[in-house]
Amino acid sequence: VCYDGSSFAGWAAQEDERTVQGTLEDALGRLTGKRTIVCAASRTDSGVHAMGQVVNFKTASTIPVKKVPRALQALLPDDIVIVRAAEGSPAFDARRQAKKKLYSYMIVRSDVVTPAIRRTSWILSGDLDVAAMRRAAKEMTGKHDFTSFTVTDKRRKLGDPFRRIYSIRLKLGSLKEFYGGLAGGLGGRALKIDFSGDGFLYKMVRSIVGTLVDVGRGRISPDDIGRIFGARRRSSAGRTAPSRGLTLIKVYY
Amino acid sequence: VCYDGSSFAGWAAQEDERTVQGTLEDALGRLTGKRTIVCAASRTDSGVHAMGQVVNFKTASTIPVKKVPRALQALLPDDIVIVRAAEGSPAFDARRQAKKKLYSYMIVRSDVVTPAIRRTSWILSGDLDVAAMRRAAKEMTGKHDFTSFTVTDKRRKLGDPFRRIYSIRLKLGSLKEFYGGLAGGLGGRALKIDFSGDGFLYKMVRSIVGTLVDVGRGRISPDDIGRIFGARRRSSAGRTAPSRGLTLIKVYY
Repeated sequence: VCYDGSSFAGWAAQEDERTVQGTLEDALGRLTGKRTIVCAASRTDSGVHAMGQVVNFKTASTIPVKKVPRALQALLPDDIVIVRAAEGSPAFDARRQAKKKLYSYMIVRSDVVTPAIRRTSWILSGDLDVAAMRRAAKEMTGKHDFTSFTVTDKRRKLGDPFRRIYSIRLKLGSLKEFYGGLAGGLGGRALKIDFSGDGFLYKMVRSIVGTLVDVGRGRISPDDIGRIFGARRRSSAGRTAPSRGLTLIKVYY
Repeated sequence: VCYDGSSFAGWAAQEDERTVQGTLEDALGRLTGKRTIVCAASRTDSGVHAMGQVVNFKTASTIPVKKVPRALQALLPDDIVIVRAAEGSPAFDARRQAKKKLYSYMIVRSDVVTPAIRRTSWILSGDLDVAAMRRAAKEMTGKHDFTSFTVTDKRRKLGDPFRRIYSIRLKLGSLKEFYGGLAGGLGGRALKIDFSGDGFLYKMVRSIVGTLVDVGRGRISPDDIGRIFGARRRSSAGRTAPSRGLTLIKVYY
């Protein structure tokens, strides 16, 4: 499932809020005639986008699985797209069985951007020391206790705080490279940060991005990263980057 | 001015409708403290986008023109962006003095697309004979009476029906080429049709695109174009392409 998160209060169904889960479950209920619960690989936050979200649901419906994407799409708004559907084993769980996830975060270095860019990026002016950001990203790669890079609350308690990040890659490019015609021929550059990991805690990617930006601005040194991990306090790391720049790219099983 | 037309009922202010003109005039009214009328180079239709719309307004405000884009942006929703502002001569009229306009229309050849693509293109399946479309486009280039490619109504009477099209260019490419990362790694191709002309009648670009698609599907022959011009009736040409695929790219003075 692919969605533009701009007009959703995130994945997870909440009363009186427009959510991706709620919207999908409504459409599936109408399609199958039965209330249908959907489970997603990643419960993306309000404003976060997805290119390759994976969801599963159980149904007794006899609609051929090949026809589900088109039939479901007809009942969905334009900001959710069903890319593919397949029948899985009854034990398949999109969330628990995910082995690897890719996320991408877009930082745009331009005063003036088009609406399509604004919707999907963090717009930042001022200098960024990308070399220092790359050094800090290297320090974050590997298996770590990411308590300093997540937020807990009543609904979200911290379970196992260890995650393994396989890679964090920073790619500089032109707006045209990243957005094609939707860059509207405007000049300006962007920094794309690609994450690959075995899983990510709540707000973890955005906390890492915010911290990397603080490194890029010289507020945090790449040498501080070890100390930040050790502190196991959210306040020891940098700010949280805005959700609009974040996209769930792909989930591997 | 750049805007995503998806959530606007077009440029022209209408009561009880969210329009680009109305939204801009509201923001300018708040910025300058005076009701301010805005005139645009092109009164784009409902759902049509703009990368390089040009507007003018008169004001007694003492806000330095350099500061207008940022100050105005702070009062605008995310789907309108002020790219630049400059002081012009009191006689400047964005609409009447426009010498050349570029429009672009995007046709996407893929069953599955991302929300960003869906918002800005006409999604078409089935074969299209692009060579035949190019021959028909050539027949439309030059100065013609475009009565067969416009719609008139009480509010929009047909004045001078002659317009000169400098060029119509059809460019095939991958979704990635046209949409960058917003294509989400999906396969599929697109056909971009670029128009350059001294001006375009109401719904003229969309009527031409719809007719070109009918040519591409073999319903109209490129040899029929001369006869269609001669008929001077909208019904002699092909369908009207949907507004979401159309973008005003640039206006020259």
